[in-house]
Amino acid sequence: MNRYIKADSWSIIEEGFCRDNQRSSESIFSLGNGKMGQRANFEERYTGPSIKGSYIAGIYYPEESHEKRRGAGRPEYSARAINTPNFIGIDVIIDGHMLNLFICDVKSFRRELNMKEGVLTRSFTAELPNGKAIEVCSTRFLSMADTECAAIRYSIKALNFSGKISMIPYIDGSITNKDSDDSMWDIIRMDVHNSEATLHTKTKKLDFHVAVAMRSSIYVNGTKCQDIRPELIKKEAWVGNRYNLNINEGDVVCLEKYVGVCTSLNHHIETLFSKSLEQATKCEKRGFDSMLCDHSQVWALKWKQSDIRIEGDIEAQQAIRYNIFLLCQTYTGEDARLNVRPDGFTGERAGATAYWETEAYCIPFFLMTSPQDVARQLLIYRYKHLEQAIENASKLGFTNGAALYPMGTITGEECHDEWEISLEEIHRNGAIAFAIHNYIRHTLDYKYLDQYGLEVLIGIARFWSQRITFSEEKQKYVMLGVTGPNEYENNIDNNWYTSRLACWCMKYTIECIDIVKRNTPTAWSRIKTKVAFDEAKEPALWKKIIDNMYYAYNQQLNIFLQQDGYMDKEQMFATDIPEKELPLNQHQSWDRIQRSCFIKQADTLQGIYLFEDEFDTDTIARHFDFYEPRTVHESSLSPCIHSILASRLGRTDKAYEMYLRTSRLDLDDYQNEVAEGCHITSMAGTWMSIVEGFGGKRAYEGRLYLAPIIPQQWESYSFRLAFRGHDIEVNVSHEDVTIMQRGNGELPIAVYGHNYIINSGEELRIKR
Amino acid sequence: MNRYIKADSWSIIEEGFCRDNQRSSESIFSLGNGKMGQRANFEERYTGPSIKGSYIAGIYYPEESHEKRRGAGRPEYSARAINTPNFIGIDVIIDGHMLNLFICDVKSFRRELNMKEGVLTRSFTAELPNGKAIEVCSTRFLSMADTECAAIRYSIKALNFSGKISMIPYIDGSITNKDSDDSMWDIIRMDVHNSEATLHTKTKKLDFHVAVAMRSSIYVNGTKCQDIRPELIKKEAWVGNRYNLNINEGDVVCLEKYVGVCTSLNHHIETLFSKSLEQATKCEKRGFDSMLCDHSQVWALKWKQSDIRIEGDIEAQQAIRYNIFLLCQTYTGEDARLNVRPDGFTGERAGATAYWETEAYCIPFFLMTSPQDVARQLLIYRYKHLEQAIENASKLGFTNGAALYPMGTITGEECHDEWEISLEEIHRNGAIAFAIHNYIRHTLDYKYLDQYGLEVLIGIARFWSQRITFSEEKQKYVMLGVTGPNEYENNIDNNWYTSRLACWCMKYTIECIDIVKRNTPTAWSRIKTKVAFDEAKEPALWKKIIDNMYYAYNQQLNIFLQQDGYMDKEQMFATDIPEKELPLNQHQSWDRIQRSCFIKQADTLQGIYLFEDEFDTDTIARHFDFYEPRTVHESSLSPCIHSILASRLGRTDKAYEMYLRTSRLDLDDYQNEVAEGCHITSMAGTWMSIVEGFGGKRAYEGRLYLAPIIPQQWESYSFRLAFRGHDIEVNVSHEDVTIMQRGNGELPIAVYGHNYIINSGEELRIKR
Repeated sequence: MNRYIKADSWSIIEEGFCRDNQRSSESIFSLGNGKMGQRANFEERYTGPSIKGSYIAGIYYPEESHEKRRGAGRPEYSARAINTPNFIGIDVIIDGHMLNLFICDVKSFRRELNMKEGVLTRSFTAELPNGKAIEVCSTRFLSMADTECAAIRYSIKALNFSGKISMIPYIDGSITNKDSDDSMWDIIRMDVHNSEATLHTKTKKLDFHVAVAMRSSIYVNGTKCQDIRPELIKKEAWVGNRYNLNINEGDVVCLEKYVGVCTSLNHHIETLFSKSLEQATKCEKRGFDSMLCDHSQVWALKWKQSDIRIEGDIEAQQAIRYNIFLLCQTYTGEDARLNVRPDGFTGERAGATAYWETEAYCIPFFLMTSPQDVARQLLIYRYKHLEQAIENASKLGFTNGAALYPMGTITGEECHDEWEISLEEIHRNGAIAFAIHNYIRHTLDYKYLDQYGLEVLIGIARFWSQRITFSEEKQKYVMLGVTGPNEYENNIDNNWYTSRLACWCMKYTIECIDIVKRNTPTAWSRIKTKVAFDEAKEPALWKKIIDNMYYAYNQQLNIFLQQDGYMDKEQMFATDIPEKELPLNQHQSWDRIQRSCFIKQADTLQGIYLFEDEFDTDTIARHFDFYEPRTVHESSLSPCIHSILASRLGRTDKAYEMYLRTSRLDLDDYQNEVAEGCHITSMAGTWMSIVEGFGGKRAYEGRLYLAPIIPQQWESYSFRLAFRGHDIEVNVSHEDVTIMQRGNGELPIAVYGHNYIINSGEELRIKR
Repeated sequence: MNRYIKADSWSIIEEGFCRDNQRSSESIFSLGNGKMGQRANFEERYTGPSIKGSYIAGIYYPEESHEKRRGAGRPEYSARAINTPNFIGIDVIIDGHMLNLFICDVKSFRRELNMKEGVLTRSFTAELPNGKAIEVCSTRFLSMADTECAAIRYSIKALNFSGKISMIPYIDGSITNKDSDDSMWDIIRMDVHNSEATLHTKTKKLDFHVAVAMRSSIYVNGTKCQDIRPELIKKEAWVGNRYNLNINEGDVVCLEKYVGVCTSLNHHIETLFSKSLEQATKCEKRGFDSMLCDHSQVWALKWKQSDIRIEGDIEAQQAIRYNIFLLCQTYTGEDARLNVRPDGFTGERAGATAYWETEAYCIPFFLMTSPQDVARQLLIYRYKHLEQAIENASKLGFTNGAALYPMGTITGEECHDEWEISLEEIHRNGAIAFAIHNYIRHTLDYKYLDQYGLEVLIGIARFWSQRITFSEEKQKYVMLGVTGPNEYENNIDNNWYTSRLACWCMKYTIECIDIVKRNTPTAWSRIKTKVAFDEAKEPALWKKIIDNMYYAYNQQLNIFLQQDGYMDKEQMFATDIPEKELPLNQHQSWDRIQRSCFIKQADTLQGIYLFEDEFDTDTIARHFDFYEPRTVHESSLSPCIHSILASRLGRTDKAYEMYLRTSRLDLDDYQNEVAEGCHITSMAGTWMSIVEGFGGKRAYEGRLYLAPIIPQQWESYSFRLAFRGHDIEVNVSHEDVTIMQRGNGELPIAVYGHNYIINSGEELRIKR
């Protein structure tokens, strides 16, 4: 834990310069626009501890798999996020000395991420080792309006000297990843001209091409220097302009840098070079302020759809906006090939782009805060990978169109390189099926089943029906050798969550087949032929499995056990762990962690959450009371689920405690790891813990349910929901709940178990 | 399986040239002298599929561990066998064409590994693409008498032409490992002079220095060419001499290459360069035939100590000698820092030097075929690593001097990089303790306990006493999260073998403490203080655990189960697996393998083997009959144990089937993997399956027991045993058993349960 971010309702603010926090701040203050993003590295040189990172969505690097020796069907490669050319760089030289805050005397320092407008600003005064003092202010953004463009304004005031100043905007293709000194890029072409430079590079593997161009202009005391001719510099993989000026004390020099980034994902390779330069030139013509205006208008719309307002608790307010902000920076729903990368554009920890968090956490968020198409597109992403999921399963020995979706993927292939995860953490398959259900129960878009969903469900149900084993000893079906969401256990038998979810998938698939058969018989006939479905045998087998599935259970406690043998472990509570041994994964050995009863993240409770409507309150409470104290929440995906269940049980204090933990996970660095990147997908869980947790929002059969509670620390809170064409605003205070709906006709809704109809433009007010 | 080796009692022979077998033959025909070794690569250029490999014992390379992220105490590095400079190379150019069998028309080809003398010869006639035909004969060996020296004699006869021939002996430091193109060597110094060249290199990490020097002389039709001046060639990491000759049809040109190899393991770095050249020069002066004579005398002694003779089954005879030969090439017992690397000098598969096979397989072999000091030295190797084993355990959270020996090590640190092996395959600790017991029951060298053994045992017993968990549910001690010898299961609970062995370790340690306390109280008092032993509490706890240990057990079958939940698996036999899916690890997914009931290698049966004296014949048979049919023997360590147990049960046919499998594992390539290297440590298992299996040899309390049986395929067999100063030769035929002893005084011995005394020089003959 490390708390240094200043509280503010709309901004993330760091005040004072702390070299030790630099890498954390680089993650926290990251920028992104769905297409590209970057850590909050400084524009000027910085030689202190730092992780330099610029990333482009959809561009990755394949590494040789370490586990190839493990039998058939292991990943061909392990995917890796790749650092792309750095375009923010501006070297500054004052009378022969390179500006470098690591070795300067930094007198004041302020960094602000304005979330309302999506702008990063930084200001400081610094004295260089040569005694020259300057005041610097930089502002930058990656345009949400024009996602191939970025702009930086960087100004320097000479505080105590007259002399020479050089500013060198550049593009650097000599980047490497954090954990390797090997370049992954070949330079195709470089060009540098007056006030402009362009670099065209290509990845050494897979041939992703990226061209980056910059245009720059320079101002002294607000007046553009038309006649200044920069030196043109070209190094091995680096192009830049060097502006040399003589200035007087008090003068302000300002550089504007306009950047265009084009890739072979969206352009022909031959045009890349010129396209990127066109984009940079276009930006320069439009100008910094106009570009910023376009950009902030996009943000205004995003906030209109997704903002959550909390009165009376500024830290909670800041946190929820931060979570929403990073989610919106990471995925905009505009490109069907992309997905929600777990660390977005903030780090290199996650290799692949799509994990089960997309379905389990992000779809609920996008489903309620974006046009319906965004969630649908995320579902179609998996439909497009169905053939590869079937191939993946067949490599592992499954037959008859069984599909196993990869644990981590970019283009549909498995590229997660640990057997206990890729082969055994198969509950992801269930999350993908459940997301279809979730989408349909919200939208009633049954057409999705005909077109895409049912094929995916059948592939998944077939997988489960083959993944189980009939135990002669138990005379039941068992599920051997799995890893549940709690990755502090591996290769366990009869993980309740996985087994329960598997049976649900088979049951839901049978239901969906019936729906499609009944509603659109021609669609069913097409699908049936396509997947060679055996109507006599397959559903019968699935039902037999569902009816005879074995679940680990403890009679005495009357709870389902996380897995076989869980009660053989030494039973302890998370509060028994000495503070200095937390987080466990940084202090204890993997051996000890695995043998302990401690749970990394919601596992059995993840299932209780998913299938909440099947359990009475006592059952939920029994499971919560058993598992919560044993959970160490060392996955970012955990506290939100616990928060939602605590809300469901009316335990507002516990729900609030868990809410703080999920919402400020990265801002307050609960896991001592934010330096490596933020946890984007779990940020959707924070949203869930307010809307589904405190708000009690549910949706069944196209109908909305609410049952809001409110933490006593808050005066009120409000959230927006996009639901079947309705634009709904829910306000919750200690006195009442108001629900305003603008949109399509009548909204039937249940609040605290009572049914209401809200007409368009009307507000429903209910006393609490 | 691939059978092409010609049967011969003393040689391994390949006839005819098959490019597809080249890599396998490179492994099978490997040479080694304990200090260095090499695959049977050709001297001349070969561009076909080939794995070039030269290795020096004790020189390795640290690689970054892939699993560093897994909590505390993970290996700092993962070890890697490293290719060392190639000194066998002799390029041959005939009238401008490089000799390269891959593109020649090879008319005859014969390769022979003469095991009696330790010499590799190769002869062939080949027509080059330019039509020139030559007959080549090469002979090489790595001296056992002078282990820094090697010699090659390479002769070429011009069959159908007169013309130019160039021979270019060289030393090549530009080697890389099979799985990487990155050089791991820096060149320190290179020199080339008339008839000599020297290369001094250093590993890029850890700074191992190696200098290799060569001297060469050339003969035409048997006459040394005194006046020929080779061209001196020096490339980036390569030094050579080029001899250019004009020859007539029928002429024979012969090159002798003498090599000296010196390393910083044995010399000061400054002297390395000159030392290696001294060695090469010394060899040249001594001459090829004299060197070979010294070398083969060492082999004669080795065979005198360890040979096994089988009459009536030439393939079995060839195989057992091959196994003994490779073991003797790999480990000579001369250097206390070395150990028995699982693939010796034949490949790069094993990263580390010492695994549990040393204790479980190799010590029984060396104990009975070498002076007692050799086995003792292998035990001391572990004693010297005790502190590191304690440190290793403490990193994993164990306390109070608990020791966990590494799964794979070179210098005492864990350098095996897979959590399920390094953290969980902890039975290795038991093998190390059992080897002490085995040594002492053979030698009665109780002094070893005082000096070294007891400290090791206490460290190991302490580890086990902390590794168990008390299950409140079972009211028993359980052992969670282990991997047994059967590595087709991982992270299982209550592996019977591990739990049983753990309890045995604690029991044996208590016994040994009592012995030392009784016999040498001062030693005990020193040890007690050194390890801070709590005499009141520690043994009491150990006894409590031993008395209350839980073992998975099946009532109905009356057998111990390999682990909890084993009977939930689908029960099948290895014979149910289609031929095309074998070996499983090359055809099935890791997921399927782990969930199946198939057993990679003796696991429960490994325990039955170790503790055989505690079980009656019926119990052994019940376990054998249950586990044998489920075992796929995909570890080289497996069939020998099954063979020994089958012999114990009097099932000679089964024992013989398993014997063939173990003994010809590499020669007939049962696992389709000999191309990557041989399985050296398991070769000791082959020896065991004759001596302990067919021969029924046991040793308890310093007394020898025999109960020979004989496969019907054999006429007779004999083996030699070194036992407490006695040199014993056992001959077994279908009619009788004769036991000849030469050595120290009387030998008390039990044969078929009857006691005898054999005086020195006498033979005991017993009718079967």
